[in-house]
Amino acid sequence: MTIPNTGYDGNRLLADLYKLRGFGTFKTGVHRPTYSEVDMQSRHWLCERMREAGLEPEIDGIGNVIGRSPGDGPRLLIGSHTETQPEAGWLDGALGVIYAVEAARALGYGIDVVSWADEEGHYGSFLGSRSFIGELSEAEIDAGYGRHAAKTLRAALAEAGLEGKPRIAFTPGRYAGYLEAHIEQGDDLEARRLKIGVVTSIVGIWQYKVRFEGVQNHAGTTRMAIRKDAGLAAAKLAVAIDATFPKVCAERSVWTVGRIALEPGAASIIPGGAEMLIQFRDADPEVLNRLQATLEELVAQSNQGPCTAALTNLSRSIPKVMDSRFQAALEAAAETHAPGLHQRMPSGAGHDAQMLAKVMPSAMLFIPSIGGISHHWSENTSDEDIVLGGAVMADAARTLLSGT
Amino acid sequence: MTIPNTGYDGNRLLADLYKLRGFGTFKTGVHRPTYSEVDMQSRHWLCERMREAGLEPEIDGIGNVIGRSPGDGPRLLIGSHTETQPEAGWLDGALGVIYAVEAARALGYGIDVVSWADEEGHYGSFLGSRSFIGELSEAEIDAGYGRHAAKTLRAALAEAGLEGKPRIAFTPGRYAGYLEAHIEQGDDLEARRLKIGVVTSIVGIWQYKVRFEGVQNHAGTTRMAIRKDAGLAAAKLAVAIDATFPKVCAERSVWTVGRIALEPGAASIIPGGAEMLIQFRDADPEVLNRLQATLEELVAQSNQGPCTAALTNLSRSIPKVMDSRFQAALEAAAETHAPGLHQRMPSGAGHDAQMLAKVMPSAMLFIPSIGGISHHWSENTSDEDIVLGGAVMADAARTLLSGT
Repeated sequence: MTIPNTGYDGNRLLADLYKLRGFGTFKTGVHRPTYSEVDMQSRHWLCERMREAGLEPEIDGIGNVIGRSPGDGPRLLIGSHTETQPEAGWLDGALGVIYAVEAARALGYGIDVVSWADEEGHYGSFLGSRSFIGELSEAEIDAGYGRHAAKTLRAALAEAGLEGKPRIAFTPGRYAGYLEAHIEQGDDLEARRLKIGVVTSIVGIWQYKVRFEGVQNHAGTTRMAIRKDAGLAAAKLAVAIDATFPKVCAERSVWTVGRIALEPGAASIIPGGAEMLIQFRDADPEVLNRLQATLEELVAQSNQGPCTAALTNLSRSIPKVMDSRFQAALEAAAETHAPGLHQRMPSGAGHDAQMLAKVMPSAMLFIPSIGGISHHWSENTSDEDIVLGGAVMADAARTLLSGT
Repeated sequence: MTIPNTGYDGNRLLADLYKLRGFGTFKTGVHRPTYSEVDMQSRHWLCERMREAGLEPEIDGIGNVIGRSPGDGPRLLIGSHTETQPEAGWLDGALGVIYAVEAARALGYGIDVVSWADEEGHYGSFLGSRSFIGELSEAEIDAGYGRHAAKTLRAALAEAGLEGKPRIAFTPGRYAGYLEAHIEQGDDLEARRLKIGVVTSIVGIWQYKVRFEGVQNHAGTTRMAIRKDAGLAAAKLAVAIDATFPKVCAERSVWTVGRIALEPGAASIIPGGAEMLIQFRDADPEVLNRLQATLEELVAQSNQGPCTAALTNLSRSIPKVMDSRFQAALEAAAETHAPGLHQRMPSGAGHDAQMLAKVMPSAMLFIPSIGGISHHWSENTSDEDIVLGGAVMADAARTLLSGT
């Protein structure tokens, strides 16, 4: 795989990915939580790679690793994240960062490389990219607490040697835009035997809690006719969502009931309370509104039963449309290196690009995930697909830099 | 309330019940776990009441309190249990024991009073009554462990001062039979404005676990079409049971899905596993078999979906029919003291009488529970109903002793 007028080297790219995999190896995957010892080691290792690529690396006060290209002229910011979910895959995040390093090496100009801290949410939500675009307050950092580790965000930053370091904020005017590559995390490319996905938008994620109240009672002595079984009410709503959402959703909408908890949850006690978490995603705000209206209607129907059901919205993220010129550049590069083997598609998962898209033109590229597996140590992509994706990224960066 | 040829005293009965309520008072109810300090205090207090009633009390090696009547002649064994569920009611169990004490006082002959240890299952299953009928092995005691307290049954017995004490076993030939009174724990008597229930049988309880296996995956990137959502499979089975069991059940059958647990139970993860506890109860073995066959069929249907479902039986207790002559004696006494205000009915809950029924004629009497509330500190019955039930019990005992 070569790209005209560049020094793109797929083997060098793979070698770096394999080295990064060595920080926190777990089975064939990686366990590298944000701010852990092994995570900080990998960030310092990344600084060395940036320096070799001619960039000026810095780890900022929230843990972002930013390698700035020297000199003047238009620049692209390219990257992703290097920490992982617990016992997760070796490519999720790492791929996009090493693609950026290789693009910087291949072109030799105009590319700043970034690894955003804590995209995986060990201590908050998109801490690194939100810090960079000016949306992370000191108060939120004060309040941050580990999801998997019993410590405050402040304590984790101090242990990582980041206490008191300045946070690097986005400098208006420095960048023509932002590019991020990622494994698809689904099986759509694989199922269609395609190699590259050009992301059209990052879906909005709307999350809800439903609280059911019934009457807890003895499972032997309480007649069926007078029961107010909150667990049954919850199960009925889950089944109603499954039956009704397909009638109002769009082609790529997804929805999930990830949690149903019955109280007290014992064999001989009729559940008096229940709680359910519901989430749906789509790239179209109209579809999201339609799904919400449907959910509200189903909860209202549930309320006509013996139990009460109360719906609470937990969050509503707005879909982020990717820049059309950047999409076109990625698509053209994909057509060059994998003719006919690419498609435009939304991202069902959240990514740092949705934050960067608030302040600059942004776009994303997907490569296939074997079996669609994600957030699991067995996550993988073939070397061939990895090298192809890296070439598309570097070539698109070249086009975008020459055109600005 | 008086009974000819007896010294039945409803006020004395109520006074003792109120005194017993003072051991572990919790709001208007009682918290008196088996073998706790307050539970043992109540057992020693009970020995004093037995002694006053002319009985010879003893606390045996499993915690049973047995007060034997002196002399010869036919005897009835009457009682229930005095420990409670956590933060539960003041009458559940206590009522039947104090009814027995009052019956012994009222008649002055032929009645042995018993408080069975741990009917409420803090350390095992019907430990006291099973010990008495010879169905509790030393090995089972060795293996016993607290459900609410982090200690072995042996340690709890030692702390209660019962280590090394002999266990009292049933002496064949001593008893004409066993009587137990209890609050109904349901609302059937109240709903029909009746005062006395004569128990026809104690239902069989059949319990099952269903284990669902799907595929855990990303809630944003996994297409709906390829999902194997174990949580949805569980919800569908719960709803199918609710829809199908009414078609095959008997009039008083009850069934409960007390627990549904999704794994891992997070908003953004498709549940890869789920577990469900299912229980049903009926007095008729044929109905129990029919419900089991229906459950097996529903699980087989679930297995035709994207997830696997595995059904495991956890327990099957056999319904226990109460003695017909004893039922007739209770019914005649009920007709004397509450003409037209009694009915025959099964017991939906388990009771020590189901163990005693294995070795001697046994029967049970129910009095109303206000609002059907049970296993909660707000459980209650009116003083009037309590005194009436005690009279029916004492009068039936008199009849049965005179007839033997």
